[in-house]
Amino acid sequence: MVSTDTLLDFFIETRKHTEAICKPLEIEDYVVQPIIDVSPPKWHLGHTTWFFEEFILNTYSSNYQVFDDDFSFVFNSYYETVGKRVVRADRGNLSRPSVKKVFEYRDYVTQAMTNLLEYNNDKTLLEVLEIGIHHEKQHQELLLTDIKYILGNNPLLPKYSDVFKEYTTENQPLHWISINEGIYEIGHNSNDFCFDNELGRHKVYLHDYSISNRLVTNAEYLEFIKADGYKRFDLWHAQGWDWVQQNNVVSPLYWHQVDDEWYNYTLNGLTEIALDAPVTHISYYEAFAYAKYRNCRLPTEFEWESAQHQFKWGQRWEWTESAYLPYPNYKKPDGALGEYNGKFMVNQKVLRGSSVATPVNHSRPTYRNFFQTDLRWQYTGIRLAK
Amino acid sequence: MVSTDTLLDFFIETRKHTEAICKPLEIEDYVVQPIIDVSPPKWHLGHTTWFFEEFILNTYSSNYQVFDDDFSFVFNSYYETVGKRVVRADRGNLSRPSVKKVFEYRDYVTQAMTNLLEYNNDKTLLEVLEIGIHHEKQHQELLLTDIKYILGNNPLLPKYSDVFKEYTTENQPLHWISINEGIYEIGHNSNDFCFDNELGRHKVYLHDYSISNRLVTNAEYLEFIKADGYKRFDLWHAQGWDWVQQNNVVSPLYWHQVDDEWYNYTLNGLTEIALDAPVTHISYYEAFAYAKYRNCRLPTEFEWESAQHQFKWGQRWEWTESAYLPYPNYKKPDGALGEYNGKFMVNQKVLRGSSVATPVNHSRPTYRNFFQTDLRWQYTGIRLAK
Amino acid sequence: MVSTDTLLDFFIETRKHTEAICKPLEIEDYVVQPIIDVSPPKWHLGHTTWFFEEFILNTYSSNYQVFDDDFSFVFNSYYETVGKRVVRADRGNLSRPSVKKVFEYRDYVTQAMTNLLEYNNDKTLLEVLEIGIHHEKQHQELLLTDIKYILGNNPLLPKYSDVFKEYTTENQPLHWISINEGIYEIGHNSNDFCFDNELGRHKVYLHDYSISNRLVTNAEYLEFIKADGYKRFDLWHAQGWDWVQQNNVVSPLYWHQVDDEWYNYTLNGLTEIALDAPVTHISYYEAFAYAKYRNCRLPTEFEWESAQHQFKWGQRWEWTESAYLPYPNYKKPDGALGEYNGKFMVNQKVLRGSSVATPVNHSRPTYRNFFQTDLRWQYTGIRLAK
Amino acid sequence: MVSTDTLLDFFIETRKHTEAICKPLEIEDYVVQPIIDVSPPKWHLGHTTWFFEEFILNTYSSNYQVFDDDFSFVFNSYYETVGKRVVRADRGNLSRPSVKKVFEYRDYVTQAMTNLLEYNNDKTLLEVLEIGIHHEKQHQELLLTDIKYILGNNPLLPKYSDVFKEYTTENQPLHWISINEGIYEIGHNSNDFCFDNELGRHKVYLHDYSISNRLVTNAEYLEFIKADGYKRFDLWHAQGWDWVQQNNVVSPLYWHQVDDEWYNYTLNGLTEIALDAPVTHISYYEAFAYAKYRNCRLPTEFEWESAQHQFKWGQRWEWTESAYLPYPNYKKPDGALGEYNGKFMVNQKVLRGSSVATPVNHSRPTYRNFFQTDLRWQYTGIRLAK
Repeated sequence: MVSTDTLLDFFIETRKHTEAICKPLEIEDYVVQPIIDVSPPKWHLGHTTWFFEEFILNTYSSNYQVFDDDFSFVFNSYYETVGKRVVRADRGNLSRPSVKKVFEYRDYVTQAMTNLLEYNNDKTLLEVLEIGIHHEKQHQELLLTDIKYILGNNPLLPKYSDVFKEYTTENQPLHWISINEGIYEIGHNSNDFCFDNELGRHKVYLHDYSISNRLVTNAEYLEFIKADGYKRFDLWHAQGWDWVQQNNVVSPLYWHQVDDEWYNYTLNGLTEIALDAPVTHISYYEAFAYAKYRNCRLPTEFEWESAQHQFKWGQRWEWTESAYLPYPNYKKPDGALGEYNGKFMVNQKVLRGSSVATPVNHSRPTYRNFFQTDLRWQYTGIRLAK
Repeated sequence: MVSTDTLLDFFIETRKHTEAICKPLEIEDYVVQPIIDVSPPKWHLGHTTWFFEEFILNTYSSNYQVFDDDFSFVFNSYYETVGKRVVRADRGNLSRPSVKKVFEYRDYVTQAMTNLLEYNNDKTLLEVLEIGIHHEKQHQELLLTDIKYILGNNPLLPKYSDVFKEYTTENQPLHWISINEGIYEIGHNSNDFCFDNELGRHKVYLHDYSISNRLVTNAEYLEFIKADGYKRFDLWHAQGWDWVQQNNVVSPLYWHQVDDEWYNYTLNGLTEIALDAPVTHISYYEAFAYAKYRNCRLPTEFEWESAQHQFKWGQRWEWTESAYLPYPNYKKPDGALGEYNGKFMVNQKVLRGSSVATPVNHSRPTYRNFFQTDLRWQYTGIRLAK
Repeated sequence: MVSTDTLLDFFIETRKHTEAICKPLEIEDYVVQPIIDVSPPKWHLGHTTWFFEEFILNTYSSNYQVFDDDFSFVFNSYYETVGKRVVRADRGNLSRPSVKKVFEYRDYVTQAMTNLLEYNNDKTLLEVLEIGIHHEKQHQELLLTDIKYILGNNPLLPKYSDVFKEYTTENQPLHWISINEGIYEIGHNSNDFCFDNELGRHKVYLHDYSISNRLVTNAEYLEFIKADGYKRFDLWHAQGWDWVQQNNVVSPLYWHQVDDEWYNYTLNGLTEIALDAPVTHISYYEAFAYAKYRNCRLPTEFEWESAQHQFKWGQRWEWTESAYLPYPNYKKPDGALGEYNGKFMVNQKVLRGSSVATPVNHSRPTYRNFFQTDLRWQYTGIRLAK
Repeated sequence: MVSTDTLLDFFIETRKHTEAICKPLEIEDYVVQPIIDVSPPKWHLGHTTWFFEEFILNTYSSNYQVFDDDFSFVFNSYYETVGKRVVRADRGNLSRPSVKKVFEYRDYVTQAMTNLLEYNNDKTLLEVLEIGIHHEKQHQELLLTDIKYILGNNPLLPKYSDVFKEYTTENQPLHWISINEGIYEIGHNSNDFCFDNELGRHKVYLHDYSISNRLVTNAEYLEFIKADGYKRFDLWHAQGWDWVQQNNVVSPLYWHQVDDEWYNYTLNGLTEIALDAPVTHISYYEAFAYAKYRNCRLPTEFEWESAQHQFKWGQRWEWTESAYLPYPNYKKPDGALGEYNGKFMVNQKVLRGSSVATPVNHSRPTYRNFFQTDLRWQYTGIRLAK
């Protein structure tokens, strides 16, 4: 457990960073929700603030005055324990509270938290604070990917920034890392922060396997496209094939074909595909089909965790073959925070690693991210195994 | 046909009035589209501007430079003749162009129009100009009703204005105006402006009928609610009954029951129901069921037009029993403007009169408004006939 | 009013004819419901029987024993007054009661009716009986059109009969019948049976018009197809155009293009298009677009009724431009039979005439049929006006 | 590998048994498809037959005449390799081929197979034959569960049989079987038949766990219902909670509450709930919520397989916590039969054991059944672990 002072610094820094991410936006960009999975930036700003108000200030600060009684209804995401809330699909229908008001809300809560932490260092409070900080860091990542979706689906294709770097080159040749059969230990194993879903360190038995030293590149993925990968049903799950047909999928998200050349929208605007960059914005279905096309498969999350110290990672969330399930002895926390992870453990796939949108200090080898198999707006990538 | 100078004044005044309507808005209010029928205010601002650019400047001004090539895609409403466009359901997903940019677009086009009209008074141009002005006036009304929907469906229920007056009291006692059987003339009959759907003046034969001198009030409508009007299937069309069941309709739109008292959202905020105000925000289905509850019926548009000089109207668009159909000898205009009215003449009902949201100089006894039978976000009211 | 004996003969003959229509069917054909508008034949058999049981035997026969208590639930169509019922979309999910049982039900009710009519000739009873007979005749037509849909959408395309004749040739040259402006009387005007929606005889004022002496043929409709009629948005209502796009409509229902030749499914099986037959199985949208392509329009139902004695009709239900609305002074009957027609008078179009599937003694110049604008499984045709 | 003679006997016996299952049906019962997951019995009869025609006769019998060219279109289930097919949702819309014709098809193919097997005992043929037999046995189970759904959702609630026994009593007291931590071997391990998804025998590491000696009973499940288990969101997955809300689920499938007493539909008709019978027809979501209510969890499929020799099983398919995934070294078979299992390995849960509807010789400890988490029409049950 870190000290109160360190946590306070961490808190302040995190709050500022969230706001820094929004700097390049126009006010209008804060408001829209083009698909249900993408939340308006101002909702992220408010929701991360509400988290501190609801789970810390309302509990630990006796004289705290709620900023606005309606905000719990507006900014609760999915905590049934806490009460009613705006249905998710309606987040983009709310013009109020205004962006200005949401920033006032942030300042108000940040200040109240700072005041509280000066005299209160209750252990449970600090634990929730640490969760709240990491919760806001998770939303920093979502902020960026949601902003990309909002701008990248606008017909004017406005850019977010000239300097944001979406990738570094995967220029090393592909080779296979071999791992021997045996018992491996899985799960978080230190006093540092982690989420509940990483706990319950336990043993798994792995058989011999090989895992690639690097991610699949755009050049390699283009070969799959050119080999009619999107038209060969034998490469796909039945569900994946239906998804391809119903959505007429022919490429990763954000790709546009102009006069036989492939371009993609990035946070720097529309650019030619970088051949040596790792392919991204692909669904689990696509990752699976690509692996099959190469006569390979995706690694399980256990294989990934057991081998990750032997390869470089951090550019892209990596799809694994593992379903998102509780570890043996997983224990759901009490109260509302018990809803944080456990209730999503069905019909999703685990992603491992982190991405260019992940904030610093927010990735570790045991981190378990998870998404539905058809989603693509995150920076998702492919690492092969066999 | 009015003179160029008068039209220019009319044009300038109309452009300014549109912008005045938006004055009380926050930037965020310009962006959202909570239901498909309601467009974002900035879309109205841009679309009415695009109309002049597309149908006048691009045709009659040889040296005109289009403001932005992408705007035709963004701001075309439904003119298939003109080309591709953003699908209607996506209007609220566009954060760009920004509100500031849209106002620049307005200024640019207003200025270019002013310049053009100084030297060009081509008769066809002036005809299209007059249509364009009335088109913008129609959108002024939609702007207000759409703003009401945007604010009135926000959980914070922000008010639009303290001074906007949504009704004047219907305090006169109800009496019936009797009209004798015979031949009546219907349709526009002067040199003043009208839309194509009012033309084709023709005769209709009406039988004896009576029509109410005033609209149905909230007090009267509450009697219908209290008499279980929403639960008596025998009062409703089969379609209307399905609509009530599927949407759990129990009152007009914007009504909220709090501790057994009825309130409604108005542009002045949430207020108690005004008992002597005309009931509004009701669907055709509700208007029909209410009339049946009173053993009356709705008037046809011909009955309404033939009697309208004998009663006061203008507070509310009045549902009629008439389907929206072309008059005998209706002639669809050539080109894109032929899409203005004709192609909507199926499965809609005619509304007559005008509402508190209708701009001055934009109502007349022959005006034919039309909506789908289930829509309620307009200021719609009920006048009985028998 | 006809005599009891005549009505009894009429009743017996009608009951037998319904069963004769089903003769060529396999038991399996009685069960399925490929689209919500098409009911399983055994449902028609049961429903027409239930009508007599519910509205006559249960009321007028003191010692009548209901055949099966559950059948009211199974065979009620839409009478809210009578109680709960199987939702329409589920009719094809019911394998029981078996076809055999339904025929027993028919025999049982036919016999009970015969017994009752021997001693009871109450005037109201006879009125309901007459409605019940005509109700069953309406279902005879639906039986045939539903059977055609059931067989015609089966990939094996089984034929219904070798002898059923779907059309007679329209080989006379097209000419226009001119009708003079003036007042015309509309509505039923004799002591013979009619439905409530034909009553309220009244005057209408018609302007000069011309109406075609015959229906549009397949040869003529093929010209429309070849002239890209399905691709020219300017010919269609906005709703119609959406319908064409969403359903990829390129021809009338039941048409199949094989090696550049057009075939259509008929009750005699798959055959080449008969060029001189009237085109059929088209929606209102298609009828409207075709008329526009010919610079004509569809007649109103009043124009049709006022001119019908001057042309041959009876091959096809003819789409009119008229919305289905109550006549002036229309009076909804009391009780459950008030639900027969009135509650459907919104968002539908009137069809006039009759078709090859209409039983004898079941058509007259004032008959008002009605359908939604997108439906095509009836024998619908086009007569032009201008 | 068993001998040709034994396989032929097995084949003949299987074919007969399928037909025996259908004996109590009316012809109408063979036709309907009340929900997409439930296929019409005649489709099962035809599809299992087509399997032999397509994968054996067309390949190995040089002089075989296909029974009907259209049947491949009608009776292919999901084999993209083989060609086009009736969309699944339309199976219940097909009245033809008739039941009689389908039985002729069965006889024709059974005879042709018998003839072929007299002289051809090619090893690959026999392998496919064995798969075909087991394929038909799988459909025997589906036949029964689909018949139950067809009859049990009919408002007349007809019974299937007086003698079919849906359960034996779970009257032993509950106790926990403890299993020690360690390495366990999983997967098929003999020369007997198994499906491809059971192969790839491999090691897993299991931690200490306990598993219940018997299934959860109706009496126990009623306690969950009475304790508001369907109203406590904290017991459910987020997806499960949405499913409960949207479908108003308050009990297992087939349960009806009449005057405060619970009844359920069984193949013997509507009967009171048997308190000591294992609860069945529950979704994975319900199984999970029930386990949580008892502070337990569901076993993984590995835990189940490793402990199954210590408890009685076979009454109900038992939901496990395991996602349906390929075993390490899973190898998809070549050709169309590669579509048998592999392409469904995403977003489904594994069920272990077997049910009262499972044919004899068709269950084994390594058998992996799988369903979507919201399906309930199978005989599914709950065994607790902790």
